[in-house]
Amino acid sequence: MVLNTLGRDIPAEYAEQYGVFSGELAAINDYQESSRHIQPVKPRDQKLLSSIREAIERTGLKDGMTISFHHHFREGDYVMNLVMDEIAKMGIKNLSIAPSSIANVHAPLIEHIKNGVVSNITSSGLRDKLGAAISEGIMENPVVIRSHGGRARAVARGDIHIDVAFLGAPSSDAYGNANGTKGKATCGSLGYAMVDAKYADQVVIITDTLVPYPNTPVSIPQTDVDYVVVVDAIGDPNGIAKGATRFTKNPKELLIAEYASKVITNSPYYKEGFSFQTGTGGASLAVTRFIREQMIKDGIKANFALGGITNAMVELLEEGLVEKIIDVQDFDHPSALSLDRNAGKHYEIDANMYASPLSKGSAINQLDTCILSALEVDTDFNVNVMTGSDGVIRGASGGHSDTAFAAKMSLVISPLVRGRIPTFVEKVNTVITPGTSVDVVVTEIGIAINPNRPDLVEHFKELKVPQFTIKELQEKAYEIVGHPDPIQYGDKVVALIEYRDGTLIDTVKNILH
Amino acid sequence: MVLNTLGRDIPAEYAEQYGVFSGELAAINDYQESSRHIQPVKPRDQKLLSSIREAIERTGLKDGMTISFHHHFREGDYVMNLVMDEIAKMGIKNLSIAPSSIANVHAPLIEHIKNGVVSNITSSGLRDKLGAAISEGIMENPVVIRSHGGRARAVARGDIHIDVAFLGAPSSDAYGNANGTKGKATCGSLGYAMVDAKYADQVVIITDTLVPYPNTPVSIPQTDVDYVVVVDAIGDPNGIAKGATRFTKNPKELLIAEYASKVITNSPYYKEGFSFQTGTGGASLAVTRFIREQMIKDGIKANFALGGITNAMVELLEEGLVEKIIDVQDFDHPSALSLDRNAGKHYEIDANMYASPLSKGSAINQLDTCILSALEVDTDFNVNVMTGSDGVIRGASGGHSDTAFAAKMSLVISPLVRGRIPTFVEKVNTVITPGTSVDVVVTEIGIAINPNRPDLVEHFKELKVPQFTIKELQEKAYEIVGHPDPIQYGDKVVALIEYRDGTLIDTVKNILH
Repeated sequence: MVLNTLGRDIPAEYAEQYGVFSGELAAINDYQESSRHIQPVKPRDQKLLSSIREAIERTGLKDGMTISFHHHFREGDYVMNLVMDEIAKMGIKNLSIAPSSIANVHAPLIEHIKNGVVSNITSSGLRDKLGAAISEGIMENPVVIRSHGGRARAVARGDIHIDVAFLGAPSSDAYGNANGTKGKATCGSLGYAMVDAKYADQVVIITDTLVPYPNTPVSIPQTDVDYVVVVDAIGDPNGIAKGATRFTKNPKELLIAEYASKVITNSPYYKEGFSFQTGTGGASLAVTRFIREQMIKDGIKANFALGGITNAMVELLEEGLVEKIIDVQDFDHPSALSLDRNAGKHYEIDANMYASPLSKGSAINQLDTCILSALEVDTDFNVNVMTGSDGVIRGASGGHSDTAFAAKMSLVISPLVRGRIPTFVEKVNTVITPGTSVDVVVTEIGIAINPNRPDLVEHFKELKVPQFTIKELQEKAYEIVGHPDPIQYGDKVVALIEYRDGTLIDTVKNILH
Repeated sequence: MVLNTLGRDIPAEYAEQYGVFSGELAAINDYQESSRHIQPVKPRDQKLLSSIREAIERTGLKDGMTISFHHHFREGDYVMNLVMDEIAKMGIKNLSIAPSSIANVHAPLIEHIKNGVVSNITSSGLRDKLGAAISEGIMENPVVIRSHGGRARAVARGDIHIDVAFLGAPSSDAYGNANGTKGKATCGSLGYAMVDAKYADQVVIITDTLVPYPNTPVSIPQTDVDYVVVVDAIGDPNGIAKGATRFTKNPKELLIAEYASKVITNSPYYKEGFSFQTGTGGASLAVTRFIREQMIKDGIKANFALGGITNAMVELLEEGLVEKIIDVQDFDHPSALSLDRNAGKHYEIDANMYASPLSKGSAINQLDTCILSALEVDTDFNVNVMTGSDGVIRGASGGHSDTAFAAKMSLVISPLVRGRIPTFVEKVNTVITPGTSVDVVVTEIGIAINPNRPDLVEHFKELKVPQFTIKELQEKAYEIVGHPDPIQYGDKVVALIEYRDGTLIDTVKNILH
């Protein structure tokens, strides 16, 4: 066992392989960028194939290779299951899969794991049945959890080398120019897929909408594509927007949102040309609305908004309150369509430009403030967005640790308790974001400012929001719902939690019933 | 000496190093893509530096390294001279320079060569005083001439490894997001620069128009940029458009244009959704006009037009006669501005996507027809666009050999003679494009169809344009102006002519006076 600087035990074999977390900038070093093996496409060559099976055959996919998918279709994705079913039928085994994330709809992976088709997984997150199965220990090798920026880093540095990327595209021409804004299952930005397309040895575009050459805008260019396959349907448009939340009416969430917006609009960063990223939760959307009102009142405009985009952001853009949107992913249909309608102002970027800690500068580095959620926050400000209070994997790392560190002021918003479960605890089950990256925590009873930001402590002295220490928030949570029961973990490591730089910030062990 | 398949002598040492041309597809092989050494940029790092000198210092530029520039400012470029002067002052020697091309305005390079600052050059072309100086043998090492697609290939495969790219950008934000459509010296597409930005270890953006973050559209992204420098002026807008030609009134050129447009509009490729690339010469622009008239008459529209773009193309786009423009370079101000105005239909691409023979499929592979110029054409259809009738280097390889091979039907247009000089000769001074890539030659007296295209010979049997053999065209040229005098070359190789695949198709020797 090796202890990292957060005091988390990392088994020696993994510590040696990955290194252990020892500060946000401790492992940011020069490197030689990964490269791909290219088979040139000659003037009369055709890329259009007749089926997914033919594409798998043409790529020469073999046992033990690494394949990837993107998660822009979210709960509406058909592509990963279609491809994995075909691969399973062909008898290919022992694959590593590296989707940018995994949704509930991908529960069929459980069978592919049990049958030996899939033996390694890396993903931003795991949901529902698959998360539970992994937590029960159905895999021999631990899943590797990576943040969105960390995944881009892993691909760029070659920690993940993708042999074949199978990328669903709402529209494509026969030469592989693909985008997410035209077609039937429009998902908007293809920001995560763009990274895979650029670094994978071979790329198969799977679409249900073939358009004449040249398809524009070009999110994934023909120069990154080997084959194109047309299928009946790549995704369910309703599933793509599933879980995208409306403005909340929950009084607790509204209070959190009000406090968060006060922190932002009273911060030193709130001025003409500021920038922000909000999330997709109910409280988070409410923050956007409160900030909007204050911006109108103060006559202040933002230079840009960033991140996973919702229609709430698009409205700010179209009102002229935000100059530009930088978009790595869209969470609803209107924001997907805005990419075309507001071309030039609503801008698609890839995950490398969004959040990689090893790029020549990611967009989050320019962020003034961001709002992040939490399943748990501990008295060191460490945040868990991965495992539930029962220790079972059900969340996703997402851009949490990326934006928390990179933004000039990061806010973590959360109710004090959820049902009978405290959100504020002595020690989080799983660390995704180190407390040193978190600046302000916002709850319905008030805020806690991280003492490692004395500038903010000083600045917010007169702020008209109740202030507590993080320890006080934890104590108040325990007063309400009591001390949480300890979780019964086994000895098997079922997930490795990479920090965005590639070192291990934590591990997750199997659950005993 | 080694003879390549065109019968050109290649000195053994170069033949061994580069290989020799032996057919358009003979050296198209799988390869591992080149990669760059990246120094990550952390959240609070600044890229904005105070001067070109500081940028050179920060990059750690040293004797013997390779630096690059782009030629989008054409005769209006200030950047290469500014940077080279500073480098010379700093005493750095023995550099290899790899600009995408070199213009008349870069004559100061002669001094840098003589002073030992520059010891190797690769470029698409050489003009005027520099071309003459090179032809006289002022360099110890031969210049390497590469086509636009060949240069992209060389960079992608690592044949050229750029240590530092100094890239002029009409506008940039302080984090390096750059484009060519905003600012003072707008050049439009930054297609050639985009390749350097992607593969160079270090990239310095030099701009005279700094804009707020994030600058959009993003032609060169922040993730490809290390430093940003603001100078008073990067280029002369008039120089950028210099040489861009108007519609010709020369009767010989009009006749050539009429014949060329007849060939195209009577070809098997002329149908709804066809595609074409024309050039910037007077006859070439006239072809565009004649084709336009025929398209209107026939009710036929093109899917796309490609290449170096002029306003003539933009007019077709805005008339709806061409669906899309794919743009690697703009030759005049209106076409530069169209990129923004017609965003989504007028599309910027990099040189790799334009023409690289080793990409996963370049745009020229989708071309139905292209129109190319010539300084000389010989009886094997080989084309010279590099050396004059005096053997002196004054031209540029450009996209000539790329498009000639890739397009389904390539036209080379040229008057039979120029002044007292025959264009059609027994043997061209310098081969840029092998005759096997040329399908139809068009002159003011009629056309010659390459016999290696029996399908076209058959198809054009009834075409109402006089037809000749290529030998007849040469004989007619000699009848008019007589047999050309042989050129007195020396023994020194002053330029290596790479074919687009990287093998040597020819060499150029020094001129004796």
